[in-house]
Parts: sequence; structure tokens; C-alpha cells
Amino acid sequence: MYLSKLFIPILKETPSEAKIKSHQLMLRAGMIKQSSTGIYSWLPLGFKVMKKIEKIVREEQNKIGAQELLMPTIQSAEIWKESGRYDDYGEEMLRIKDRQGKEMLYGPTNEELITEIFRASVKSYKSLPQILYHIQWKFRDELRPRFGVMRCKEFFMKDAYSFDLDDEAAKKSYNKMFFAYLNTFKRLGLTAIPMAADTGPIGGDLSHEFVILAETGESKIYSDKRIFDIDINKYNNSDSSIEKLRKEYDNFYAVTDDKFNKNDFDKKVEKEKQLTTKGIEVGHIFYFGDKYSKPLNCSVDLQDGKKVNVKMGSYGIGVSRLVAAIIEAKYSNNVMKWPDQVSPFEVAVIPSLQKNDKSNYLKAEKIYNFLKDSNIDVLLDDTDEHLSAKFKKFDLIGIPHQIILGSKSTDNKLEFKEVNGKTENLSLEEIKNKLVNKRNIN
Amino acid sequence: MYLSKLFIPILKETPSEAKIKSHQLMLRAGMIKQSSTGIYSWLPLGFKVMKKIEKIVREEQNKIGAQELLMPTIQSAEIWKESGRYDDYGEEMLRIKDRQGKEMLYGPTNEELITEIFRASVKSYKSLPQILYHIQWKFRDELRPRFGVMRCKEFFMKDAYSFDLDDEAAKKSYNKMFFAYLNTFKRLGLTAIPMAADTGPIGGDLSHEFVILAETGESKIYSDKRIFDIDINKYNNSDSSIEKLRKEYDNFYAVTDDKFNKNDFDKKVEKEKQLTTKGIEVGHIFYFGDKYSKPLNCSVDLQDGKKVNVKMGSYGIGVSRLVAAIIEAKYSNNVMKWPDQVSPFEVAVIPSLQKNDKSNYLKAEKIYNFLKDSNIDVLLDDTDEHLSAKFKKFDLIGIPHQIILGSKSTDNKLEFKEVNGKTENLSLEEIKNKLVNKRNIN
Repeated sequence: MYLSKLFIPILKETPSEAKIKSHQLMLRAGMIKQSSTGIYSWLPLGFKVMKKIEKIVREEQNKIGAQELLMPTIQSAEIWKESGRYDDYGEEMLRIKDRQGKEMLYGPTNEELITEIFRASVKSYKSLPQILYHIQWKFRDELRPRFGVMRCKEFFMKDAYSFDLDDEAAKKSYNKMFFAYLNTFKRLGLTAIPMAADTGPIGGDLSHEFVILAETGESKIYSDKRIFDIDINKYNNSDSSIEKLRKEYDNFYAVTDDKFNKNDFDKKVEKEKQLTTKGIEVGHIFYFGDKYSKPLNCSVDLQDGKKVNVKMGSYGIGVSRLVAAIIEAKYSNNVMKWPDQVSPFEVAVIPSLQKNDKSNYLKAEKIYNFLKDSNIDVLLDDTDEHLSAKFKKFDLIGIPHQIILGSKSTDNKLEFKEVNGKTENLSLEEIKNKLVNKRNIN
Repeated sequence: MYLSKLFIPILKETPSEAKIKSHQLMLRAGMIKQSSTGIYSWLPLGFKVMKKIEKIVREEQNKIGAQELLMPTIQSAEIWKESGRYDDYGEEMLRIKDRQGKEMLYGPTNEELITEIFRASVKSYKSLPQILYHIQWKFRDELRPRFGVMRCKEFFMKDAYSFDLDDEAAKKSYNKMFFAYLNTFKRLGLTAIPMAADTGPIGGDLSHEFVILAETGESKIYSDKRIFDIDINKYNNSDSSIEKLRKEYDNFYAVTDDKFNKNDFDKKVEKEKQLTTKGIEVGHIFYFGDKYSKPLNCSVDLQDGKKVNVKMGSYGIGVSRLVAAIIEAKYSNNVMKWPDQVSPFEVAVIPSLQKNDKSNYLKAEKIYNFLKDSNIDVLLDDTDEHLSAKFKKFDLIGIPHQIILGSKSTDNKLEFKEVNGKTENLSLEEIKNKLVNKRNIN
């Protein structure tokens, strides 16, 4: 892609309404544009990053055997009355009347609807266990939307639902998702810590919030520092291995505000191992048994002919929020560097261009074409801006690798820079191999 | 995937509310489930097909240089008041008041919002031409939703918007999209004919509807039969080639109801070449100049400092509707056969299984594992149903290739069937190669 053709409205100034760095960067780099309060359009750069995050989330769900479907955004109020949440949910639920006066709503979550699908489709214990998920837009009519896509009204979310015969089987599903979440965040370049959490309006008795550390986070967290050293690569996809992983995490104190108790904290964690800081919630998992299956009468036949309400859990990841969360984690000293796996492009070619001398332009184009033909996703800055202005722009765009064609470059070796890393002089072939190898690692 | 694990609630009977065959099949094969009137959930089988269609639509948009972004589903009423369509649109627009009483709506289309994004982002003639598109859920509050996802309320649609400096450049963008549409539908296994059409509520003076023939179609169409013989493979992506393609289509009479004139038809088309039939609209393209850019004040600076309102076109493809349209075209004599490119699986392994004899099961599993290891997307019917019941089920699921393990199969050669085609006895290696080759052609 040529930068002059890319639809990327870069802003020179930071808009005053943006209080945190992810919101600032996303507006300045032309990743999003607010269309009305708390509702955003995703411009090509932001969209591309979000799609890459979505793909990783999807792959890790599929790996644990979850099946993807898609529920609509607009739901009937009826099933929410069946579950009893229609009145409870409050003003954050966007309530709608259709042309016939029927009560509808824009789904803020999908426990009711998935339960209704499941009860109509599955009759026998033989079909269990089952995990279903979708990645769909949700709406919460926030009173004070803020921090850009971090706390907005319309947001993109993966929500999964597990269905099991009993508590024991259900905990296995819960643990599988726990494992999938750790792998998902790791592939996104994030260290997310599962924290014992309050179950809130979803209800139930077992819940973890996955939190990444960030000064701008809205969750206060209290933990044992050693929890950050757990190596999830030691574990595999089997039930027994995942159970060990769960146990290792359970060894260390890690809770959010709602569950915090100072006496407990001091008793369980030595002073010098205590970490009190802030974080951003990027995922949340719940086990709630028959909280929905009972009122909605979702049951299966057992082998002996008896009926049992299925035991359910629900599991969310904020896909659009993750774009901002990754920025909060990776944008520092005014330089953004996307993790390779979610970067909008793999490499940028940044030539110094003179009006009266086409040689650098032609050279840049040759490099660009070679990389493109090698299936590398490359952005060429073909604008006539000064090199220093280009660098400032790329500090916002955050592509992790740059090929810089200044005056210094010789014919055979190119200046290849890893953002926040070293600069090497490499041949084009060497650069290509480096990029392809990095891709294979991720 | 093992069929016993797949979330696919197959119905034995055709639900009485389904009047056309695509609606019947989608319900019976467990592709969709109605969640409220005219609003559907997409279950895994239907979701997979829709995603494959979406991918092809996206690839053909990208090929002509269109850039993908994503606008939200919920829009402010304000810009619709600016364009004057807020009052015009009628009751099909789902109108919403948020918790603060602000007038919002669920976008039925996006001319206003994209114009607003463009005017805030692009200032100079240098950035044109530009084509932007997104693939997003839309909502039209149909008075009488019917025919399943063919005429429903919440639907998935690709809509693109072109921005040019003058009519001449804009027609080039229009023609590019014309070309992309023909290629898109061809890759989907459909013959879609561009018909001169009325511009309707979108407005403007140049418009084509892309229609596939189907008895159940809601559009009445009148055409010269020869238009079906045009070979789009003769043409390429260049402006001049695409213009010739446009001209070839313009040679033949082809209009929908709104534009039909009997005298014209009889004058331009000999009796024996006249075709009067019904069709399904799967795409619609419009050129409307400054219809939106003028009221919304979307202009760019020309080289001489003057300002000009950009000239726009809009281009829609009904992605969710296409799932049903393909079924209408490909489901006959109670047998469905998906085009390879959008089939939910590439091949089904269908063994006859006896309770007291594991040999066929083990053989089937071996075949399944071999194909899976060869990266072929395969469905294994591991249920204990009778073979004839399995065949009936697969007539609904519509996977185009089957490996049948009846009593006849010898050890080395397998019964490989192409649905509605021939049955051959092939080795597993030969089957694999056949499937991989077919994939490379599509």
C-alpha cells in the first residue's frame, strides 16, 4: 500500500477530549473517528488491527473446540423477561420499540439468547459438553462514555457459552477457557493476569477477570508479584495439564477491588512481594451453573430418562477494547510499536524524497515491489514530506520495522530498523528472510 | 469435525412458515434459527457459508483498490436531518432514543455517515479517487419480513462508496465496481445479470441491479437472452477493458420492472430472444453525483484553490441474502450442492456403522485423519444412523463431495461421489489430489 493512497487522516494535534494515551493515539493516527458520543467508526488502520486481534481470539477459541455462530444485535425483550434481567439491567440497556410497538433491545450480552437457542436445539446428554461463541457488536448505553473505545457504547466482543451436565464437567470447560485466554493474550503480546473477581450482574460463584497492568486502568488490583513469572508454555491442552495450570495461578494472591481484603492480602503475601496497581480488564470468565438454564427451562434428557438443567458458564473478551489496551501497554515515550502479530503492516519503507531527483523514489518502489511479491504486507511512504516529519508520523502508526532510505544508504545494504531496537545494514534478501522468520515464530 | 459434535440441529420436517426452498433448507439443515420476527441467529453451518461469501466479496473489493473500514450500526439522527432523509425514510428505519433522549437510529444504509467521515478527513483533490467500503449489519424494520434471510430485518451487507472529482472519473469508479461485482458473483458460482434499474430512495441517475434468475424472485425482469452468453473472462482490470465490458452489456436489453417499457422491449429484442422471468436482486450499484456531498457540504480543494463537491456512488451486496440466493440457484430435486468455494466443508466421510463391528468406524476415522492432516476441511458422520438416513441428511447439508463407506468398499479403492455427478472408485491419495486441485481452480 502507498501511504498517499491509504485512507489515514493523521492529526497534527492531540484532540483535547482525549485523556489517555490510547485514545490520543487512535485519534491522531487516524485509526478511529467518533461518529456520535461513545460511538466510533473504525478507519482502515484501526480496522486492520482489530481484525488481526479478532483472528487470534477466534483461533484460540477454535483450538479448545468451541464452535462459532452469530447471534443478532437486536433481541426481543421477551427472553430477558423470562430470565428476570429485563427490569434489573437498568438504563445501560438500549431499549427499542419497533414499528409495531414490540419491545426490543440492543444486546449488551447474550446469556438469554444462547440459552434459548440451546434449549430449542439440544435434547440429549449425548450432545454435551458444548461450547458456543460469537464475535459480535454489543451496545451499552454508558452514561459517561470516555477513554475512546476503552469505555464506549458500541463495542466488539467475543462471548462464549459452555454447556455441561454437572459442576465437575463444567469446571473443565471453565478451565479450558482459562487456558485459551492466557494463550490468546500471550499471542497478542500482552501479560494478562487472571484475578479472582466478583461475579456482578452475570451472577454465579466462580469468576476471573483477566487484567493487564496499566497506569490508566480503571480496575485497582492487588497481587503477589510472583504471579507474573508463571510460564504457561509448560502446559498443554489436556484437562490434567490445564488443572495444574489453574492450581499454579491459585497459589498466588491476585484480586480486584471488589474481592480485596487487606488482612488477607497481608497474611498471604509478604510485604516485598505485594503489588498494588491499576489494570485494564481485557477478559472476564464466569461460571454460574443453572442461573439461566433454570428460569429459561433449558434441560437435556439423561440416560435414565430424567431431565437436568444444563450447567453454564460465560466467557467474554473485549476485542475492540483490546486495540486500546495494547496501545496502553506498548505506546511509550511518544513511540508506538505494535506487536508483530497485530501490526497493521509488517514493514514500512521510508525514503527521503527530493523533488528534482527521482532516484530514491525508484529505489523505494523497487524495494516495495520486491517485498510485496514476497507476500510481505508493506507500506511505502511516497509522500514528499521531510524525513523528520515522516519519522514523527511513523511513531504514531507504530509499524515495528522500518527500511529507511536516507542519504546514507549504499546500493547493496539497506538501513533496517526495529522500532525501539537496533538498526542494521542488511541486504533486501536478508530483510525479507528476517520478516518471514518473525512471522513464523508468532 | 465429527458430525456428532457439530452444533447442527437438523429438522425432520419442513416448518410450515417457510414458503420458499432456501428458507426451508436453511431451517431444516440447522443453518439459522429465528430469534424474533425477521431476526435470525446464524448457527455454525450457516455462519461458515456466510463467512466464505464475505471473504470472496472482500477480496474482489480489495482487488479494485477499495479500502475497508467499519462504521457503527447505531447512528445519530443529526446527519440524516442534514441530508433530508430522516423524514423521508419512513417506518422501515428503526428509530431509537438513547437514555438521554437523543434521537438515534440503526443504520439501514450509510451514505450520510461515510460522507461525514470523508468531509472531516479529506481536504485535497490529491487524495481522490477513493473507494471506501465496509461489511456490517444493517436493519430495516420490514412490515412483513418473509422468506427467511431473503427479506429479513437485520441483514449483513457490503456497502461501498466512491469519491471522485468529476462525472467522468466517477464513471470509472462505477465501472470498476461493475467489474468487481461480476467477478464476485462468478466466484460464488452464480450468473448475475446487471439490469438497468430505477434509482429509488438512494437517488441519482445511473444504476444497475445485479439479478440472478430464480422462480421465487421478487423482481420481475425482462431481457435479451444473449446477455447470459457474455464471457467476462475476456476482460481485465484496466479502465479501457472494463469500459468495453460495460459496452458489451449495454448492447443487450435487460431491465427490471420499474424501467420496463413493452414497446422498447419489442423494438429492441426479437420475439424469440426475449426472456421474461423472475429474479433475486443480489447487488445494486448507484451513481448519484453530489446528491449527498452538496447538502452535507463535503468538498475538496482543487489545484486552483476552488472547492468542489465530491461526486459519489454507492454499491451494495447483500452478503446474508446471498446465502439464500445461492440455495435458490443450487437446490433442486431435494438435493443441495454448495459451490466448492462457499461449501461449509470440502468433503463428507459417510460410513455405514454397525454396533457390533468397529472396522468401518476405524477405517472412516483413518480417512478423516488423513484428510485433516492434508488440510482438507472434512466432516465425518460418526452417528449410528442408517446409511439411507445419512444420505437424506447430506442432501440438506449440501457438501459437494462424499466418500461413502458402504459394504461395497474394498481396501484400496474408495467410493468417491460428486453430488449430482459421477461416482468413482479412487485411492485416498487420488481423492486428496482431486480436492486440492479443485480448490486451486476456484
